[in-house]
Amino acid sequence: MTKPAVILLSGGLDSATVLAIAQDQGYEPYALTFAYGQRHAVEIEAARAIAAAAKVARHVVLPVDLRVFGGSALTADIAVPKGRSEAEMAGDIPITYVPARNTIFLSFALAWAEVLGARDIFLGVNALDYSGYPDCRPDYVAAFQAMANLATKAAVEAPDNDRPYLRIQTPLLELSKAQIIAKGLALGVDYGRTRSCYDPTPEGMACGTCDSCQLRRKGFAGNNMADPAPYR
Amino acid sequence: MTKPAVILLSGGLDSATVLAIAQDQGYEPYALTFAYGQRHAVEIEAARAIAAAAKVARHVVLPVDLRVFGGSALTADIAVPKGRSEAEMAGDIPITYVPARNTIFLSFALAWAEVLGARDIFLGVNALDYSGYPDCRPDYVAAFQAMANLATKAAVEAPDNDRPYLRIQTPLLELSKAQIIAKGLALGVDYGRTRSCYDPTPEGMACGTCDSCQLRRKGFAGNNMADPAPYR
Repeated sequence: MTKPAVILLSGGLDSATVLAIAQDQGYEPYALTFAYGQRHAVEIEAARAIAAAAKVARHVVLPVDLRVFGGSALTADIAVPKGRSEAEMAGDIPITYVPARNTIFLSFALAWAEVLGARDIFLGVNALDYSGYPDCRPDYVAAFQAMANLATKAAVEAPDNDRPYLRIQTPLLELSKAQIIAKGLALGVDYGRTRSCYDPTPEGMACGTCDSCQLRRKGFAGNNMADPAPYR
Repeated sequence: MTKPAVILLSGGLDSATVLAIAQDQGYEPYALTFAYGQRHAVEIEAARAIAAAAKVARHVVLPVDLRVFGGSALTADIAVPKGRSEAEMAGDIPITYVPARNTIFLSFALAWAEVLGARDIFLGVNALDYSGYPDCRPDYVAAFQAMANLATKAAVEAPDNDRPYLRIQTPLLELSKAQIIAKGLALGVDYGRTRSCYDPTPEGMACGTCDSCQLRRKGFAGNNMADPAPYR
């Protein structure tokens, strides 16, 4: 019997790796991507290509307009920072932070999980290279899982057992970008299909200097290989 | 100095009362309504009328399609139960339950609160007449608040103080429907503008026999008055 799981799939490197990990663990993946008004909408096309290549059970691209509230360089007309040092990235929460984004995404995943009878939601956050976002930290993920187990009919009506009814699985949480890439390569992920840049050209060429590009390039360098995705 | 607050405003009796309570407490209300594919879309027009009458700072009606996942009589082509007894209503979680609905709604409210610098989100749930929804219970609300205080830049960067940075305020939690109506009447709420029916006519006339209509009628009866909203 297959185990369904909802996989949050952004089209980036991390979530593509998470999808491969979930499949390797025997889960039947239901991939969920958001069209949330992001400047880097080439991510969505990347998500479609990744989902198709992985032969997921279903891929939903859900329009959710986060621009209406404003407040982020990823959804509003604010410049994406470029060429920041590692010290700068490790400092304040950056302007590319989208308010409550992972909370909104996980909430939709929770709704779909309930309808599917899925007990696992996979999220590609990692705490080491997390670029300062509060909703990528382990204590945040644990708090979301605790809330989720009180939120749904399925969890509330489930018989007691030896694990939480719903689990937010974050297999990349303790990995560096280089370790994530190494794991994905071992599972056959084609990183040429993934896109990470916060400020790509309309054709999907990466800028190479935003925080996300810098972390990604460092990760490939750590594996002694060139990033197969295109740069301008 | 005004205190902004996000008010989840469905167009129903409860959330109209919560809006009046928040204003009475001195909050500047930012009202948030979802067009989520509900069968009872006359609620949305009711929300617009209530927000306009209350002169809210801003009213956002956000399209969020929950139909894509299915699973509820409120969003899918499933019959709404009619004429259930109180014992039946108090039993299982009903088919009108929408998976993870309050979690999704609160997540968007959290995003808006962060952009506004608001520290309060008002939600019109109540535990006594809650018709069996898991995401209307006090322990659920407390868990959401705990998660929210780990989720956002504003909460994480806030200095320690004597209250949680973000509060999910549920002033109706311990009230019966009759008590809610009594409170709203004292604050001048015009309940003729509100709509509660799960299965209204296209013109907005209530059915009178779904769970929501029955609870509402009982609440007005408890105040020795007729419901000013229209029934078919």
